[in-house]
Amino acid sequence: MRALVYDRILQLRKDYPDPQPAPGESIVQVVRAGICGTDLEITRGYMAFRGVPGHEFIGRVVQSDDRSLIGQRVAGEINAGCGRCALCAAGDARHCPDRTVIGILGRDGAFAEYLRLPNVNLIAMPEAITDEAAIFIEPLAAAYEILAQIRPSPDASMAILGDGRLGAMAALALQANGYRPVVLGHHPQKLERLERLGCVVAMAEECQGREDGRRRQDVVIDCTGRAAGFTDALGIVRPGGTIVLKSTAAADGALNLAPVVINEITIIGSRCGRFRAAIEALASGQIDPRPLLDGDYALEDGLAAFAAAKDPRNFKILLHP
Amino acid sequence: MRALVYDRILQLRKDYPDPQPAPGESIVQVVRAGICGTDLEITRGYMAFRGVPGHEFIGRVVQSDDRSLIGQRVAGEINAGCGRCALCAAGDARHCPDRTVIGILGRDGAFAEYLRLPNVNLIAMPEAITDEAAIFIEPLAAAYEILAQIRPSPDASMAILGDGRLGAMAALALQANGYRPVVLGHHPQKLERLERLGCVVAMAEECQGREDGRRRQDVVIDCTGRAAGFTDALGIVRPGGTIVLKSTAAADGALNLAPVVINEITIIGSRCGRFRAAIEALASGQIDPRPLLDGDYALEDGLAAFAAAKDPRNFKILLHP
Repeated sequence: MRALVYDRILQLRKDYPDPQPAPGESIVQVVRAGICGTDLEITRGYMAFRGVPGHEFIGRVVQSDDRSLIGQRVAGEINAGCGRCALCAAGDARHCPDRTVIGILGRDGAFAEYLRLPNVNLIAMPEAITDEAAIFIEPLAAAYEILAQIRPSPDASMAILGDGRLGAMAALALQANGYRPVVLGHHPQKLERLERLGCVVAMAEECQGREDGRRRQDVVIDCTGRAAGFTDALGIVRPGGTIVLKSTAAADGALNLAPVVINEITIIGSRCGRFRAAIEALASGQIDPRPLLDGDYALEDGLAAFAAAKDPRNFKILLHP
Repeated sequence: MRALVYDRILQLRKDYPDPQPAPGESIVQVVRAGICGTDLEITRGYMAFRGVPGHEFIGRVVQSDDRSLIGQRVAGEINAGCGRCALCAAGDARHCPDRTVIGILGRDGAFAEYLRLPNVNLIAMPEAITDEAAIFIEPLAAAYEILAQIRPSPDASMAILGDGRLGAMAALALQANGYRPVVLGHHPQKLERLERLGCVVAMAEECQGREDGRRRQDVVIDCTGRAAGFTDALGIVRPGGTIVLKSTAAADGALNLAPVVINEITIIGSRCGRFRAAIEALASGQIDPRPLLDGDYALEDGLAAFAAAKDPRNFKILLHP
């Protein structure tokens, strides 16, 4: 099959082996896939991944040992647990130590004609959600994970660092839950687009270089995708406040955690979320992320699609096989 | 007066100016002071402090504009707030952005004949608590702060990294509250002494180099005083678990926070605590830390006292002016 394959370089292959389903797995024909910051990090060495990246997708089941799935239009939870450990038994395959993660860890992903996933990972998609909107389920679920982890008071001051894809999802999810976070970014055009979606925005520079006494955010959510985002977050969170870390950068940063101790900051690592809340928000129209679409490329133009995804003026870039 | 003074080097001075009380402050004649890991960090550059270190003390009020205080035997909360900001108004001088901290930040400390502190910081000491036990109030309060921040389930698995002064305090405080943490250290003699105090102990080496799948502590408390303690904590905390950071090391460490995000770890910075719980535990005899005393030096022998405090075989070293 045709696939975008990363193996020290990213390239289109036309002879990549078709996925072979294990028992309990289905084959999904990919209809559309989205490029995420993690995909870009993978091409910088993140997780030492080799294979087909891509974990945001909508597709149709074409082969399955569960006949009821065949023909279904589906999205998929990205973590595939071992099914045997205590975490899997408790329903938390996301943290199974032996998990694979589609397009990220030990399992080929969605930038291809076909992918395989356990049947239990597949989630039938309501017709009310278009293919384009469905691509946002996985990153929107990652944003909703924040509210599964913390429940700030309704009047909490909140800042989102980063005006990229994940920052936009976090802003939409928090707004849909009644919060009024300010999105701090470096890209006036993207901030303007977020403002048109109802977000409160500001240039990040306006909040930096302040004295300690100006630290005043109850909650800061780092969606910068850079190791330095954590340091920026430390600069604006109030003493006793909370930083939600969403960035998984490939590079190490030189950090001194003493300010975390001195100011008694709480840091919450936050990764994937469950799809249900995101699906409901999209199906009901409470959140419509489609204004964030900036391109839809054929798989053959995958390298151009990655270049567009790296362009800091763009939000979401799609691929279709 | 005589004082140990740090100004790039630590030395005894016999002509150091007597402290001059501001309105609302008292002068305390120091009876005994304890050397803490933070004092050792200060001599390595922590907080760029210059002056008299020392923040664990018991003394007697010899001068005050509150006459009821004169003659009282007191310990003292170490953070002195500005008294005007929102945090001070809410009773949280510990996080006042303009605070001074005795012996740590902008205020001379207890390794001297006399010190000054706001009257509101002084806490009368019950006679049931000896001078030697009273020295442990401040570090024990810092240990109790953990339980003011998190309330693990009674059967939570807990590890304390570090068999030093603070690790010992954390172990005693958690035990007094019904938990059974394991203290992981590198010093067999100190671990044996903690075992005689009823602690569960193990050599840290036994827990390192494990596969991800072996990560299983619900809560890990880093009391190592080293930047690397955080990385060690990450290695043994379970996915979704909590790391309490107690270490304030002067040095930066090269860190990659991606595992915090991937495993959705919560990190809680934890510094000073309120004295009340610690005073009650000492006054009732629930905790008796005096077996941790390893020396009581005259102020004139302050450099030898610091050398003893740096000796990894020792717990608590005292000074008396």
